[in-house]
Amino acid sequence: MEFMTGVKKQATLEIRDLMSADRTGKTVKVNGAVHSVNDMGAVTFVILRKREGLLQCIYEEKTAEFDVNSIREGSTLELEGILEQDERAPHGIEIRIRKVRVLSEPAEAMPLPVSKWKMNTSLDAKLNYRSISLRNIRERAKFKLQEGIVRGFRDFLYEQEFTEIHTPKIGARSAEGGANLFRLEYFHRPAILQQSPQLYKQMMVGVFDRVFETGPVFRAEKHNTKRHLNEYTSLDFEMGYIDGFEDIMAMETGFLQYTMELLGREYGDALRILNVTLPDVSRIPMVRFDEAKKLAAEKYSRKIRNPFDLEPEEESLIGRYFKEEENADFVFVTHYPSKKRPFYAMDDPEDTRYTLSFDLLYHGLEITTGGQRIHDYNGLMEKIAARGMSGDGLEQYLNTFKHGMPPHGGLGIGMERLTMKLIGEDNIRETTLFPRDLSRLEP
Amino acid sequence: MEFMTGVKKQATLEIRDLMSADRTGKTVKVNGAVHSVNDMGAVTFVILRKREGLLQCIYEEKTAEFDVNSIREGSTLELEGILEQDERAPHGIEIRIRKVRVLSEPAEAMPLPVSKWKMNTSLDAKLNYRSISLRNIRERAKFKLQEGIVRGFRDFLYEQEFTEIHTPKIGARSAEGGANLFRLEYFHRPAILQQSPQLYKQMMVGVFDRVFETGPVFRAEKHNTKRHLNEYTSLDFEMGYIDGFEDIMAMETGFLQYTMELLGREYGDALRILNVTLPDVSRIPMVRFDEAKKLAAEKYSRKIRNPFDLEPEEESLIGRYFKEEENADFVFVTHYPSKKRPFYAMDDPEDTRYTLSFDLLYHGLEITTGGQRIHDYNGLMEKIAARGMSGDGLEQYLNTFKHGMPPHGGLGIGMERLTMKLIGEDNIRETTLFPRDLSRLEP
Repeated sequence: MEFMTGVKKQATLEIRDLMSADRTGKTVKVNGAVHSVNDMGAVTFVILRKREGLLQCIYEEKTAEFDVNSIREGSTLELEGILEQDERAPHGIEIRIRKVRVLSEPAEAMPLPVSKWKMNTSLDAKLNYRSISLRNIRERAKFKLQEGIVRGFRDFLYEQEFTEIHTPKIGARSAEGGANLFRLEYFHRPAILQQSPQLYKQMMVGVFDRVFETGPVFRAEKHNTKRHLNEYTSLDFEMGYIDGFEDIMAMETGFLQYTMELLGREYGDALRILNVTLPDVSRIPMVRFDEAKKLAAEKYSRKIRNPFDLEPEEESLIGRYFKEEENADFVFVTHYPSKKRPFYAMDDPEDTRYTLSFDLLYHGLEITTGGQRIHDYNGLMEKIAARGMSGDGLEQYLNTFKHGMPPHGGLGIGMERLTMKLIGEDNIRETTLFPRDLSRLEP
Repeated sequence: MEFMTGVKKQATLEIRDLMSADRTGKTVKVNGAVHSVNDMGAVTFVILRKREGLLQCIYEEKTAEFDVNSIREGSTLELEGILEQDERAPHGIEIRIRKVRVLSEPAEAMPLPVSKWKMNTSLDAKLNYRSISLRNIRERAKFKLQEGIVRGFRDFLYEQEFTEIHTPKIGARSAEGGANLFRLEYFHRPAILQQSPQLYKQMMVGVFDRVFETGPVFRAEKHNTKRHLNEYTSLDFEMGYIDGFEDIMAMETGFLQYTMELLGREYGDALRILNVTLPDVSRIPMVRFDEAKKLAAEKYSRKIRNPFDLEPEEESLIGRYFKEEENADFVFVTHYPSKKRPFYAMDDPEDTRYTLSFDLLYHGLEITTGGQRIHDYNGLMEKIAARGMSGDGLEQYLNTFKHGMPPHGGLGIGMERLTMKLIGEDNIRETTLFPRDLSRLEP
């Protein structure tokens, strides 16, 4: 009988291994994809792409035991050679190649210049060849940072005693209803794709007090802008026993502090590759919705057209205002008008035209919507009635409140938007692995 | 200008705080939901449900400054009282109540006996009142363990230098095609919900070497069994530069070892509540598909009806065989027949009727399918042609191989199935927060 006993030790070394112990002058074995091959006459530079970065290898006819022509861009190899120090090389090391074992070969030449530092390729071409364009070191680094953001979100919330949940994406009814739902047939019944885990995470606050979910949400909006997707990853949390909606903003500030610290500590390579300076999140200003509109209107001489709506241009000006006045990258805009928020939002008892809610703007773009929710059953039924809604299809959600719920609130963060703003991109597709928009359903 | 500066310090204490410092005899403040109220005549026991567990509070008319009738099951409260030691109470502590602040009240009495240790309620009733039934301590604990499984998966893979990815669930084309796809209209184009992130994770192996994803998958299968769901959470990884498909099994064994250790260390409460003994995963036997069938057939006198298929009853017998013969909870069954595996599976060069693939059985139930994939473009095109498939809709996937891919493989683990087997449940709906099956689309 044969047994599996755990992770296998690799015969090949990673870049970290090559750098950490003194192996200079020793024979080492590595693998990787051929990122580029540069014939310099006397020597040929073979640059391997590994998950940690690039590794410079040198081919010289006199020392190598094979023909350099067997090495092509896009091949994957296992190389054996002598490790040497060279401060001009990436990570300060290079390998003088002795032997090669070709693991795989491409069938055709690369369609994009992935080995260039900047590809100068159109966004469309990058997306059409997504699995190729991401082999570029800069393109790839964006998604490494994205990993760090999601990891920071989860690890911070575990530390704060949140429980992770997994809620269904196919449902009979959604949180906010309306026209922006994708519809499908579910075994001869009409169904929708959830536009948010809102109702589920609230239901679970009565069970776990604090819950979070990181997962896809679906919005059939016919927007065609640089900041909208029809499917995106939402970082959601919901917490009970709050004293007010400020507790939610405090928790989000804690998340940002934790995550920027994590990125600085463990994602330094990606930050350097993308030349990203982490924002200061030690304090984030907060301003009321109506006040924010007024500040931006006054400073930038812009008329307020609708006091109950915030246009994208106004968001942008508010972002600019707080950057100029407070050197703040983020700003919490609070007390959104009730008519702009869903039925479950808690109105401000001091002025019910507004809600105990907020958006977080990052350089003038909304990356979070959150707030306190109604937790009292009768209050919820009144709000539903006042909106001319029926509770049809919301029975189980409403039952949750019927049998008692703590005061609670939460938020949703757009993962791709947060990544986009952190990196300084101006199109959300740049920070989405496989974007879904009005025209794009593939790859 | 007001600022948010990070997580707010709570005025109330959690169970851990109550236990950790010596606060005996001191006045403490806590909050929670009223799990049960038991009037014993002289005193009333008020059991609070908090995220960490239950907290016993004692009401006596002479010391409390309020009427006990204001406390109802399902209310949420903030209590002030004197902390005392009592070894009969949960966690060995109790609070003698002085004051109460009612945070919220239920509108109706509880429809299920959630405060009982075992509810003795039908599965259907539990699912119909999901947000209520999970307030039961045992029901809730299942999903705490599920969190630990997913957390273990991710943390182990981060440690092994995998990159987390987020791939789209709406697509034009799926990994395996066929009848079990949910279909929807995507802005006047036909679209499907992905039954697996397979094609995407392979595409990303060429970028990051090692990738993983934890997310929903959708299968429109008309199965109505205790082990099938139409939407479930899949724990997927894919890794490059493998020497063989054994590397995938070794990595999965490492995951199980890491995760059982994590559960033992950080999820002890849930393990105790559910009376779960963690399985021994120090070594997992592996057996060929044809050999496994033969062993089970011989020992249990069961005829092999189809040498190229494994029926659920055979899986169950194989599980039983290895439990009896090797005291093994898990067994890797390897070399599945080629005709039972998708086009991208790598055939065994020594006998192409079989593949370099495996399933992992846990107590006789398949919880993982994995294996090595074809990485050579021409080989992939040949397999597609031999199956009578066309490459239509697979262009970007195939391009990935055209431009070079390392030898690679991976697996998918059913999160709900793994949880179900770990806990010893016999219906997957017991370990699914909100199951989706042929008849259930709500809540």
